[in-house]
Amino acid sequence: MDETYHPRAPAWEVEQWFNTDQAPTLDSLRGKVIVLEAFQMLCPGCVTHGLPQAQRVRQTFPSSKLAVIGLHTVFEHHAAMTPTSLQAFLHEYRITFPVGVDMPGGRDGLPRTMRAYGMQGTPTLILIDAKGRLRQHHFGQVADLALGAEIAELLIEAA
Amino acid sequence: MDETYHPRAPAWEVEQWFNTDQAPTLDSLRGKVIVLEAFQMLCPGCVTHGLPQAQRVRQTFPSSKLAVIGLHTVFEHHAAMTPTSLQAFLHEYRITFPVGVDMPGGRDGLPRTMRAYGMQGTPTLILIDAKGRLRQHHFGQVADLALGAEIAELLIEAA
Amino acid sequence: MDETYHPRAPAWEVEQWFNTDQAPTLDSLRGKVIVLEAFQMLCPGCVTHGLPQAQRVRQTFPSSKLAVIGLHTVFEHHAAMTPTSLQAFLHEYRITFPVGVDMPGGRDGLPRTMRAYGMQGTPTLILIDAKGRLRQHHFGQVADLALGAEIAELLIEAA
Amino acid sequence: MDETYHPRAPAWEVEQWFNTDQAPTLDSLRGKVIVLEAFQMLCPGCVTHGLPQAQRVRQTFPSSKLAVIGLHTVFEHHAAMTPTSLQAFLHEYRITFPVGVDMPGGRDGLPRTMRAYGMQGTPTLILIDAKGRLRQHHFGQVADLALGAEIAELLIEAA
Repeated sequence: MDETYHPRAPAWEVEQWFNTDQAPTLDSLRGKVIVLEAFQMLCPGCVTHGLPQAQRVRQTFPSSKLAVIGLHTVFEHHAAMTPTSLQAFLHEYRITFPVGVDMPGGRDGLPRTMRAYGMQGTPTLILIDAKGRLRQHHFGQVADLALGAEIAELLIEAA
Repeated sequence: MDETYHPRAPAWEVEQWFNTDQAPTLDSLRGKVIVLEAFQMLCPGCVTHGLPQAQRVRQTFPSSKLAVIGLHTVFEHHAAMTPTSLQAFLHEYRITFPVGVDMPGGRDGLPRTMRAYGMQGTPTLILIDAKGRLRQHHFGQVADLALGAEIAELLIEAA
Repeated sequence: MDETYHPRAPAWEVEQWFNTDQAPTLDSLRGKVIVLEAFQMLCPGCVTHGLPQAQRVRQTFPSSKLAVIGLHTVFEHHAAMTPTSLQAFLHEYRITFPVGVDMPGGRDGLPRTMRAYGMQGTPTLILIDAKGRLRQHHFGQVADLALGAEIAELLIEAA
Repeated sequence: MDETYHPRAPAWEVEQWFNTDQAPTLDSLRGKVIVLEAFQMLCPGCVTHGLPQAQRVRQTFPSSKLAVIGLHTVFEHHAAMTPTSLQAFLHEYRITFPVGVDMPGGRDGLPRTMRAYGMQGTPTLILIDAKGRLRQHHFGQVADLALGAEIAELLIEAA
């Protein structure tokens, strides 16, 4: 049982969703652990490491208890990474979990959700517990062993 | 909390230990989660997958709460995988956790600990909880994400 | 010395070049062996295998004797793989050899150079000898050992 | 055509051969290009890189024109890497090309062939041309692309 204080995760500001009919929200996912994978489709570290890891997470843990959500946080090359390009990217890389396009318009040219979470770049992996609280924030690579342990801890807490 | 019944792990029968001054036993490790990595030094799957994973486990989790124990379970090519060869192997592959040589003499030519645990081959990874009970038995490859989650579950139980 | 007959490589029809000030042509490259790497920026096999291999070729052989030319042969998801997106892709993946955008308008919706070479998809790697003749056509993956040998054969012929 | 002077490769001094009925010699292989892979069975770089590369060479080039010969050059942990251990190693790693055990007794504790070729360690890959002359000496890793080109050059010379 975790007794320390954890802040609530900021709401997502998304202009368009792919791979889902209904826009997922922190409220609608309450009760599930959330793995939020922030990426850019032209970021090599996301293509090589972050997104394949998010897909492994999706295959390893039951979707009744854990949600994997992608967030396309474009902060450079905006004209190159439009939603149209993203849609083809998701198709070609066979990414089937819901992916939201982060809303432009945050300060410093960052999209709003990226700004609200204080992300430093891509890939960033965020863990949100079943009560909607921020629990882990990984910028860059996190190893599967450590991530598996972190996810399990939140799943057990939620049970 | 785990309420189901789990059998006690069989005691290890070891003829020689490397990388440790005192022979570790299930009793001496009581209170710690144990990752038991059974391998043969000339088994390619052990060299490529099993032993590197055991080393990652050692680096990821605190040794105050989790023990990694290697077990050299030679069931073929006995003259090729003597303790002398094993010692050089451990040195060259920089394996620093304790490794025991499984005692010959089990039925069907299997060494005794391998027989007692019902192992089907190498690599085999066994998880033993802090109370000395058998909790997982993986023959062949297990993915890091799943293993990290299984270890975390046992660590949380023990806490 | 190669005595068999080899057809001339078809001229490239390119609507825009990146990473070069002057449009390379078969004539301007006469005397050099050419590695032509046909790819699509959203093709996972191109990103994982084809383009890294082309970069290794560029680093391994002298540019005075061998030219590496990329060809962006978009035959699907046209709106997703515009020249604007390609430019950002080349920047993010640090591809520095010249890359041409294959001219749309071939039969069956294929771009023109792709059609002229009879390519079946991406990645495709074409070897052109120093006399401008077609010598190898690999669709999918070709191993580095075999490719290194094929390139060396053409370099020796040219010397 | 190569006009420079290349020294003759030293004869191999081997105490035992595996995977062959007749001891291969430089004379018996005259007319073929030879890839000589010097390794130790407990050398991680040999297991990870050198030997798999030698196997790829064997699969890529015709055995009528190119011979792959392994040489077990034990210069440390002698008791751990006996011919008995080597035999099991070759079986488990499915190495099917001829492998000779380098004769002990060179100066400085090095085996004799290793000493004669001036090898600095393992893995070492030596290329010998069809006339029995030394042409390349790689200590450590050599990339497949470069090696493929070097082999092709010697094969073309021999033709």
